[in-house]
Amino acid sequence: MEIQTTVGEYLINQLYSLNVKHIFGIPGDYVLGFYDQLSNSKIKTITTCDEQGAGFAADAYARLNGIGAVCVTYCVGGLKLLNTTAEAYAEKSAVVIISGSPGISERKNLSLLHHKVKDYDTQYNIFKNVTVASTVLDDINIIPIEIERVLSSAIQQKLPVYIEIPRDMVYKVVKGPQKCNIPDFIINPKAMREVLDETANMINNSNNPVVVAGVEIQRFGLQNYLLEFLNKTSIPVVSTPLSKSVLSENHPMYLGVYEGAVGYQNVRQYVEQSDCVLILGSFITDFDFGNSPTPVDQEKTINAMSSKIYIKYHNFDNIPLKEYLKNLCKINIKKFPINNKIIKGQKTKILRNKISNEKITVNGLFTILNGFITAENIVIADVGDSLFGGLDLFIHKGTEFISPAFYLSMGFAIPASLGAQLSNPNIRPIVLVGDGAFQMTGMELSTIAKENLNPIIVLLNNDGYRTERNMLDGPFNNLYCWNYSKITEIIGKGNSYIVETEKQLETALSNANKNLKEFSLIEVRLDRWDSSNALRRLTNTFGKKIKEISDHSE
Amino acid sequence: MEIQTTVGEYLINQLYSLNVKHIFGIPGDYVLGFYDQLSNSKIKTITTCDEQGAGFAADAYARLNGIGAVCVTYCVGGLKLLNTTAEAYAEKSAVVIISGSPGISERKNLSLLHHKVKDYDTQYNIFKNVTVASTVLDDINIIPIEIERVLSSAIQQKLPVYIEIPRDMVYKVVKGPQKCNIPDFIINPKAMREVLDETANMINNSNNPVVVAGVEIQRFGLQNYLLEFLNKTSIPVVSTPLSKSVLSENHPMYLGVYEGAVGYQNVRQYVEQSDCVLILGSFITDFDFGNSPTPVDQEKTINAMSSKIYIKYHNFDNIPLKEYLKNLCKINIKKFPINNKIIKGQKTKILRNKISNEKITVNGLFTILNGFITAENIVIADVGDSLFGGLDLFIHKGTEFISPAFYLSMGFAIPASLGAQLSNPNIRPIVLVGDGAFQMTGMELSTIAKENLNPIIVLLNNDGYRTERNMLDGPFNNLYCWNYSKITEIIGKGNSYIVETEKQLETALSNANKNLKEFSLIEVRLDRWDSSNALRRLTNTFGKKIKEISDHSE
Repeated sequence: MEIQTTVGEYLINQLYSLNVKHIFGIPGDYVLGFYDQLSNSKIKTITTCDEQGAGFAADAYARLNGIGAVCVTYCVGGLKLLNTTAEAYAEKSAVVIISGSPGISERKNLSLLHHKVKDYDTQYNIFKNVTVASTVLDDINIIPIEIERVLSSAIQQKLPVYIEIPRDMVYKVVKGPQKCNIPDFIINPKAMREVLDETANMINNSNNPVVVAGVEIQRFGLQNYLLEFLNKTSIPVVSTPLSKSVLSENHPMYLGVYEGAVGYQNVRQYVEQSDCVLILGSFITDFDFGNSPTPVDQEKTINAMSSKIYIKYHNFDNIPLKEYLKNLCKINIKKFPINNKIIKGQKTKILRNKISNEKITVNGLFTILNGFITAENIVIADVGDSLFGGLDLFIHKGTEFISPAFYLSMGFAIPASLGAQLSNPNIRPIVLVGDGAFQMTGMELSTIAKENLNPIIVLLNNDGYRTERNMLDGPFNNLYCWNYSKITEIIGKGNSYIVETEKQLETALSNANKNLKEFSLIEVRLDRWDSSNALRRLTNTFGKKIKEISDHSE
Repeated sequence: MEIQTTVGEYLINQLYSLNVKHIFGIPGDYVLGFYDQLSNSKIKTITTCDEQGAGFAADAYARLNGIGAVCVTYCVGGLKLLNTTAEAYAEKSAVVIISGSPGISERKNLSLLHHKVKDYDTQYNIFKNVTVASTVLDDINIIPIEIERVLSSAIQQKLPVYIEIPRDMVYKVVKGPQKCNIPDFIINPKAMREVLDETANMINNSNNPVVVAGVEIQRFGLQNYLLEFLNKTSIPVVSTPLSKSVLSENHPMYLGVYEGAVGYQNVRQYVEQSDCVLILGSFITDFDFGNSPTPVDQEKTINAMSSKIYIKYHNFDNIPLKEYLKNLCKINIKKFPINNKIIKGQKTKILRNKISNEKITVNGLFTILNGFITAENIVIADVGDSLFGGLDLFIHKGTEFISPAFYLSMGFAIPASLGAQLSNPNIRPIVLVGDGAFQMTGMELSTIAKENLNPIIVLLNNDGYRTERNMLDGPFNNLYCWNYSKITEIIGKGNSYIVETEKQLETALSNANKNLKEFSLIEVRLDRWDSSNALRRLTNTFGKKIKEISDHSE
């Protein structure tokens, strides 16, 4: 069915039909008309304190919802989104960037309209570097086609896209299909046959295969196929930092998070000594694969990515992960015997038996959190020990764990909890954030308060950029210490707690749990040099690298 | 004299020799080695809460100091600087962006090192769009030449530049000249003769010439030549929003700020009815020229920009503004009779006779501020009524007024005051900022506290995005209201005041004036629909434009 409407309303309809129910951003004069249309639509507009917060919120929303959107004004708004869009690109998140821009007609009269940098297409050119598709809606004849092309790319590839609307185009009338038509991949059945045969052959001839379940399993919503495959074959499975929570951590086949040299040694050994590694939807990053150049022997590896599969030293183009995985469940792959001893050893939910009155430590903090998190929570980790300690948390069935575990941009977690809880009001975010990251975007708690959301923020205050202290310390790693708990007074909402002992943490978590009507901020005061074991392992590796560079580069 | 040192120290030496005494930023692992070198150098490192704050601070520092610098890590740091660098480009500010990046050697081992987006040169490619010169220091043989090339461009053109250092290059040894050699422009003396003759001819044959003194006069430090020229010729002079404070507002020849259709009508008429308009170092933006397409007749215009001069319908390349202006002071241009009546009428320092107990208004606020600002202050205005009301402030000799009056990026003023006061500790910033902008970057008051600076922040709290309300209002213009004065409790430093009447404002300003040891935050609670006359004129024009677009674009 075709509809006839204004360009702005047409775009809004297409977004809504793809499940965009919220849009994040800040208005400005070049985008005011579109904001007005948004406020009269079924999509709810969430204005944040700064565009950066909108970008992170939209990214988290897209990770959980399949697609997210952010809407800003030209350059002064858009260019603040470069970093969050780069994150969405690096970690595969379908964020639609919508930017207003000067009207085509007014550009002719004056060459320097406010917010302009070099040329009128500067922002468009810049965004090409961090998106998979982009368009300027300046030709009324092809607008429906352009919108469909760009949104299809976002959905099919789970990558960010850019749509710019000159303000004099917003109210022009277009006619086009009511719903975005996302075309299917065209698959060569013979290529599919070949890759499946090879896969079955490699797995069936192996003794101790292992599955690395990557983040694309979550992004493309393929968890059920993964579970079916594991159930059928009984092959042990690991996640990676970026894909943690891709399956429940009490799944019988689950070994733990694989982090190469910096992770648990028994998980590492299992993967690296396997004679057939089936990597599903992962990309080989330094953090996911523990900063070691050749973690697994390519000869033994099947690496299936979203649209390309590498087996040993050759590869297959245009085989989508979804179809591949679906078929893997059907073909003849044998069931492996379960080695209970190995599998049981890898994963344990470590709990605190006795909560003491002693000074809280990082390990104590995460152990206590382990007993607190339920299937009604989502854990959102910022960069630093929030992430590395967080990787050791035991994540239940149904719970999610999200973090920027490859791009590692600080300041993600608090605005991400805004996006996450709006995408699913039934989950309550537990946000793990360091003091450095909090100083970047923590004030988005204001937007969280405005939207009546109730995340529990656990602020790991260790007095500076802790991750860097282990690598190379100096005065540049120090932060000016805030009285973080006073933030609730600025915002006029929320509860805050200062925690110095294990007992205080338990009380704070218990109170936060009961208070459903607003956010809770729990500032955990940690020793400056305390850290999780994971962070210590990691920064030793990375610090050694900096030392090596300074020793050997002359 | 040649020196031999490490790449990092070489760059530091060059920057220091060009007068970079402070550098703003946040460290990260790819730039830690360079941060370590910085902390052992004569340049002081100022770490901010977020990279955005560092970018704005460096821009303000560069505006006052001639050059500024910001230093960050790869992508997660650098890409947060896109907007502030675009601002520096749009408004001509010589900011040097320094970014660490993955070592060249380590890129070979693993294709996905953390923080990477598409390719290792993604950040470099993006920054080309907002800088005038850029380089990656990856070839040891040409590093001194590259550094000189890039820094020369920054200094000569007063535009931002980008320097990326792969982390394995920082400690390599280079040999090069001790000081950056900034080459002089090569000028064709015959071209100079021709342009001077034409200029003299046009001015001498005119009856009521006028000078528009643009922002490049300030950026290139040409104020003395301007004063000499005005003194010699007695030609009346106006500034523009972007160049306000380019000369003292009690200069006998000064008419006021020219803002085209939205400014004072008598200033507008004088400029637009002049028979010879000499524009010196300005660019014809919609805000500076009041959003009207042809404010002045090209037939009557001499438009001298930093390196190019337009006269009527022809132009001269490669004539630097400095040399042109220097020569204008020497050639035969007549002295015009002073029309005291006209000149006197344009500029008045409006003062409040009697401070009342009545509710404070925007006009009341600016009138009272007029009586408060002295030659020891610098006024830094953010976007909105902070800027438009601020344009009517009377700026003394020696005082500066800075604002993003063309690029108009919100959130500039508070971090800018950090950069401004570090560049000149003898001035005390008066910061004018709206509530919307404050929510973006106001927490950089923490960095201001850390550095023991003492700006006076005047927060115009009018409950939302005031500028937009006049154009097109909706719920998207509402802000969640903070208890702004509590910020001093979070930071543990600074004094804050809540002002609702004129009397309270006077008391707060007087107390802030006496408290030299920390910042003061004065929250002025304004009526939601109150605004300065200037903003009302402006938004009527801009709102009409949005209305026109919506009416006529179907």
